[in-house]
Amino acid sequence: MTARVVLAYSGGLDTSVAIPYLAKMTGGEVVAVSLDLGQGGEDMESVRQRALDCGAVESIVIDARDEFAEEYCLPTIKANGMYMKQYPLVSAISRPLIVKHLVQAAEEHGGTHVSHGCTGKGNDQVRFEVGFRNTNPDLEIIAPARDYAWTRDKAIAFAEEIDLPIEQSKSSPFSIDQNVWGRAVETGFLEDLWNPPTKDLYAYTEDPSLGNAPDELIISFEGGKPVAIDGRPVTVLEAIEELNRRGGAQGVGRLDMVEDRLVGIKSREIYEAPGAMVLIKAHEALEDVTVERELARYKRLIDARWSEEVYDGLWFGPLKRSLDAFIDSTQEHVTGDIRLVLHAGTITVNGRRSNHSLYDFNLATYDTGDTFDQTSAKGFVELHGLSSKIANRRDREAK
Amino acid sequence: MTARVVLAYSGGLDTSVAIPYLAKMTGGEVVAVSLDLGQGGEDMESVRQRALDCGAVESIVIDARDEFAEEYCLPTIKANGMYMKQYPLVSAISRPLIVKHLVQAAEEHGGTHVSHGCTGKGNDQVRFEVGFRNTNPDLEIIAPARDYAWTRDKAIAFAEEIDLPIEQSKSSPFSIDQNVWGRAVETGFLEDLWNPPTKDLYAYTEDPSLGNAPDELIISFEGGKPVAIDGRPVTVLEAIEELNRRGGAQGVGRLDMVEDRLVGIKSREIYEAPGAMVLIKAHEALEDVTVERELARYKRLIDARWSEEVYDGLWFGPLKRSLDAFIDSTQEHVTGDIRLVLHAGTITVNGRRSNHSLYDFNLATYDTGDTFDQTSAKGFVELHGLSSKIANRRDREAK
Amino acid sequence: MTARVVLAYSGGLDTSVAIPYLAKMTGGEVVAVSLDLGQGGEDMESVRQRALDCGAVESIVIDARDEFAEEYCLPTIKANGMYMKQYPLVSAISRPLIVKHLVQAAEEHGGTHVSHGCTGKGNDQVRFEVGFRNTNPDLEIIAPARDYAWTRDKAIAFAEEIDLPIEQSKSSPFSIDQNVWGRAVETGFLEDLWNPPTKDLYAYTEDPSLGNAPDELIISFEGGKPVAIDGRPVTVLEAIEELNRRGGAQGVGRLDMVEDRLVGIKSREIYEAPGAMVLIKAHEALEDVTVERELARYKRLIDARWSEEVYDGLWFGPLKRSLDAFIDSTQEHVTGDIRLVLHAGTITVNGRRSNHSLYDFNLATYDTGDTFDQTSAKGFVELHGLSSKIANRRDREAK
Amino acid sequence: MTARVVLAYSGGLDTSVAIPYLAKMTGGEVVAVSLDLGQGGEDMESVRQRALDCGAVESIVIDARDEFAEEYCLPTIKANGMYMKQYPLVSAISRPLIVKHLVQAAEEHGGTHVSHGCTGKGNDQVRFEVGFRNTNPDLEIIAPARDYAWTRDKAIAFAEEIDLPIEQSKSSPFSIDQNVWGRAVETGFLEDLWNPPTKDLYAYTEDPSLGNAPDELIISFEGGKPVAIDGRPVTVLEAIEELNRRGGAQGVGRLDMVEDRLVGIKSREIYEAPGAMVLIKAHEALEDVTVERELARYKRLIDARWSEEVYDGLWFGPLKRSLDAFIDSTQEHVTGDIRLVLHAGTITVNGRRSNHSLYDFNLATYDTGDTFDQTSAKGFVELHGLSSKIANRRDREAK
Repeated sequence: MTARVVLAYSGGLDTSVAIPYLAKMTGGEVVAVSLDLGQGGEDMESVRQRALDCGAVESIVIDARDEFAEEYCLPTIKANGMYMKQYPLVSAISRPLIVKHLVQAAEEHGGTHVSHGCTGKGNDQVRFEVGFRNTNPDLEIIAPARDYAWTRDKAIAFAEEIDLPIEQSKSSPFSIDQNVWGRAVETGFLEDLWNPPTKDLYAYTEDPSLGNAPDELIISFEGGKPVAIDGRPVTVLEAIEELNRRGGAQGVGRLDMVEDRLVGIKSREIYEAPGAMVLIKAHEALEDVTVERELARYKRLIDARWSEEVYDGLWFGPLKRSLDAFIDSTQEHVTGDIRLVLHAGTITVNGRRSNHSLYDFNLATYDTGDTFDQTSAKGFVELHGLSSKIANRRDREAK
Repeated sequence: MTARVVLAYSGGLDTSVAIPYLAKMTGGEVVAVSLDLGQGGEDMESVRQRALDCGAVESIVIDARDEFAEEYCLPTIKANGMYMKQYPLVSAISRPLIVKHLVQAAEEHGGTHVSHGCTGKGNDQVRFEVGFRNTNPDLEIIAPARDYAWTRDKAIAFAEEIDLPIEQSKSSPFSIDQNVWGRAVETGFLEDLWNPPTKDLYAYTEDPSLGNAPDELIISFEGGKPVAIDGRPVTVLEAIEELNRRGGAQGVGRLDMVEDRLVGIKSREIYEAPGAMVLIKAHEALEDVTVERELARYKRLIDARWSEEVYDGLWFGPLKRSLDAFIDSTQEHVTGDIRLVLHAGTITVNGRRSNHSLYDFNLATYDTGDTFDQTSAKGFVELHGLSSKIANRRDREAK
Repeated sequence: MTARVVLAYSGGLDTSVAIPYLAKMTGGEVVAVSLDLGQGGEDMESVRQRALDCGAVESIVIDARDEFAEEYCLPTIKANGMYMKQYPLVSAISRPLIVKHLVQAAEEHGGTHVSHGCTGKGNDQVRFEVGFRNTNPDLEIIAPARDYAWTRDKAIAFAEEIDLPIEQSKSSPFSIDQNVWGRAVETGFLEDLWNPPTKDLYAYTEDPSLGNAPDELIISFEGGKPVAIDGRPVTVLEAIEELNRRGGAQGVGRLDMVEDRLVGIKSREIYEAPGAMVLIKAHEALEDVTVERELARYKRLIDARWSEEVYDGLWFGPLKRSLDAFIDSTQEHVTGDIRLVLHAGTITVNGRRSNHSLYDFNLATYDTGDTFDQTSAKGFVELHGLSSKIANRRDREAK
Repeated sequence: MTARVVLAYSGGLDTSVAIPYLAKMTGGEVVAVSLDLGQGGEDMESVRQRALDCGAVESIVIDARDEFAEEYCLPTIKANGMYMKQYPLVSAISRPLIVKHLVQAAEEHGGTHVSHGCTGKGNDQVRFEVGFRNTNPDLEIIAPARDYAWTRDKAIAFAEEIDLPIEQSKSSPFSIDQNVWGRAVETGFLEDLWNPPTKDLYAYTEDPSLGNAPDELIISFEGGKPVAIDGRPVTVLEAIEELNRRGGAQGVGRLDMVEDRLVGIKSREIYEAPGAMVLIKAHEALEDVTVERELARYKRLIDARWSEEVYDGLWFGPLKRSLDAFIDSTQEHVTGDIRLVLHAGTITVNGRRSNHSLYDFNLATYDTGDTFDQTSAKGFVELHGLSSKIANRRDREAK
């Protein structure tokens, strides 16, 4: 059977040259698949055409922006998804969606192989390949950057050798991945952990010290889902886009971190995710008002584990699905409005209201109307501390 | 035996009037104990004298600032102690230290009772009383505000009745607790969750939108302990004080949250803790560089549980001690420098360096010098995803 | 309004005498509610009549055996519910069902109060009262044993005083709670932890050392639910009953433990629960075959937390519901047969088969047919251990 | 430099033939290292001599029995180490000790390589190699069974080819690993999960149905360590050996399980570990009496994670060390006596006594002497259930 390689195609130099390269290495054909995840840049039709120009037998472009927002970003909001308490999983949640469409394309177009451009030391190879294995283990995987040590220099040389009709872009010092949920940047300069990021690294956010006037806004949620901003109904995609704009204008959503990769090494990463961070912050603030204490405490553990599973490439794994079942069951009453101020890099929650609130003014107030029965407290305190009182007494006596 | 009540004395109206009141209610004597925890305000000698003027048979003042910083704030730094991911336990860690000194005073001065001024619907009554029961269960506890419904109005009436030599302060709308680690404010106006905080609430922090020039600083840690700022050696207390000043000037460290109290209700709280937040953020950033991935993941769970235990008044409990043992064992190599910029309410880490770093440039770099063996990745990915691959295959076949 | 007390009525002396006592204390009427949970003993019609004889204005008897098995025992099987790894929650899961029926009876019969016979130092008062508060907080609660220090001696004296038509049973040294899921016994003799249980304590199980011939059986599950024994279809109730008989005949299901009560003390408890233990053991063995590793590891944590929540009286709490959502999502494929041998107190699993198995003979075998690609292992091992390798190198160098 | 391979040498056919094979493959020399871990069988001097006969340039035999018991089995007792709640880590804890001695031998005898006989689909390769990498990453690793597909048939053919002076043992259908802590058996017949184990599989335990008279014994612990049996002082090694004998005679300690291997597959395993199971059961029963509730609940999570880390080959990892710190801090008061009966495969605890007990007779008793203040309970119940009461009210109102 002739090989038919379904390639995750970005339109950039590396994957463009990979089209003839993969055809040559496998003696087969290449189908290019490109997803619009809101990454911006070039229009998708040009991307589609370039793949054909480079020799793809099919070139498929998919507008997956709403699907990405509803089925990948929204669960991340519900899970307050932050790896290492800070990184909103920008690349991690896009990979399973790309996997899904690559596998679908392979199944529809007789693909025998799937291919991605990732190296062997990052997380994304894992996310792609575990995704492929989990959803269609019959497809063979080719990862030229890792398996054939296919580099940019080799790609340029090969493009010249076969006279490929592609403009050679100026070599950028940045390695970038971006979508509507955020933007990830790595660059050699930052591999020295003491170097601060430079201004040219950023594209989604303005300099927070510019001094723009504060931007106050109200985000409304229903069942954990953002449904309106300042009273105007929005889809999840629109919410992210609007908050990217408004948050970005205030310099909100920058992150400079040292990250624990799944392959066992630490790496320096720069992220920008204004919409993601605003939405998760607002969502957490609404959960603080609408989710009961013991459930909220446990959900924080579940959220952290969810984030690790997704980071680790196990989006399609059974544990992820059961964590989702837990999380979904907590969101029914996460309904209400959160007011925030965005300014100079900060997100400040300063108001919340909800018909599903667990805050009880009459129990909480110290003013007239107080209905809290303080006589309950004495017995509560006594028994709450009884087991540790007994333990401390034993400790003293046993010495 | 004549009652001898050892009272946690703040110098304010309520506890001042409580001195003759407790004497009357018990038919005994009152020993006042006041701690300097860096709360500022009045000098401690005036506080000491006022207790005597109000009828205390002993009035003891203790400068506990360094003890508080070293033995209560420092463990909180090591545990990245944040209740509900955001509140640095300002009041929660001061109560056990007050307990310790009250019990010591009772044991030295023949105390039969200990007393605090907390109500029956807050957390602090629990922290005080569980603390007393855990460290000396023979002492009886009197909580006049809860057990005798002792209010400010009653206190004022009683002061007039017995002609107590105390100035009646103007009634403040704020209920405040503060120490060097931070400041907590509650007020009736904020019991409506939709009301934003007003500017007069704040005392430790300037308005973040003032537009001060950014402040870049370097914090050095040894074994998890802050030991220098910008190269100048500091004690933990000095570190907190300096960062309160510098962070406060930038509006850093404000928090507006709805909190899950131990007694089962939600309440609105405003906190300011610039030093605490800067130190914990820096400490976390250094852990990201110096603590191994699996340990770091598990430590986040331990940190969260530690924060809950301390919040819940179980500082002296056996679980807290074993969590400390875990945490202490992780800090040996949390040594190095973190560079941050404080500005307009934000804390931005932008550099880290450490001789104990686990970051390996040669494994991380994509440039020359790369020593990462990418051929390992293929097998890793295969087995990392094998169990979920088998599960997904079963799921498809079982349908 | 006249008080109408809905009483959890067992038919025994204490709750019988409580009928006129509660009427007297409240100046109102008493409605008796009795549940058949498979506890055996007296027929329920006699119980019903006795309540009327003692003065109840209504006496309601409910056959709740199937409801208990399907909605309380079955979730416990799915959660492998064992408090402190050993106690299958015999009393803990019956209380919420009694609460449900008491509240329903109160709502149907105009009840103003609900009442139970528990003391103030056990767990069951908590389970009852938290249950009442969670499902109908308008009902007032009366707990005569705790609130009025109502004891057996007082009950007997009161019965004589009002000439109540009730036989005075011989005072039993045992305090017993039993239902189809198991039996709990406390007795003064065992309050010395060094005393071994005596033979007369047991009623559900024979002496394991009797030497009966081993009993081999096959339990079939569908989606985590026991559906057949030795090929004969069974309801959950029938499964428990049959395994109580067969397990009990082999002395299986005895437990002698020191338990951490919710009220802060440790207590000695003797349990018998042959059916429960056989079913949970079989269920766990089937999960070992049908649940993926990472999900299984996490489910063990969830199971333990579920057991604590249920033990702690929080059956109706929001965390319990979300834990159920997690657990339910794991059970879809827990389908298949488990073969066990019951003998002399032991339950030995010795065979399992399932169309939903994740065991893959071809991957597991060391014989011909092996499809496991061992070349993957080298890379896996390398990266699996990389982060700790780097950490150990740092530790050596930092010394 | 000439290769010098330090080989984990068992004395069996495979590793015997591996000596000349490794010498040939590397062009170097082989140093054989054999550990006595209480596995019994052949005397160690014969093993030592055989390695020399097969061409080893050095043959080192180490009596590591006490070291194994004190530094590997004892931490497992303290952690109640059971993978998947049932497997006491028989092979898992022996590998790191073998690693330690192989690395020491390599460092003392100029070794350049370390070698083990494991295949590429088991856990032990991971434990060995992660151990080597963690303790001395400069040593190269050779795993002939995995890397050269070195099988028993090839070994026999090679032995004949080079005329090796070794008796060819009859091919056993069993793959066995054993030491004083237990015995693991795999065999083709059991790869069908429905097949029950046959009697000839067992060597450490008698048939439990033999009908021996029950054996009652008392195990004394100090700080979590077994120190006496029936009043006679024992070392940890002696405790394990005696309980292997006495437990084995009663058929105690057999296990038939399907196990989740680290490499992603499920496998069927038979274990015998009478001493291990008796000691862990007794240790847990003593913890139930001497460890405070909240600490005990959390320790169960820590124990489970410890067991996973050790199973997963991360004995030398930083998380394992911090889990040890937690566990060690809990053992100070795990001191006292546990009485058990061993009979027909069961371990029954029926008595416990301790000067460090947290059981308080006066709080627990329902008889005279009761000091528990039941009036505390009402308030406790009220606040314990308050947050879920509020949540349920909200749920009803929000519908």
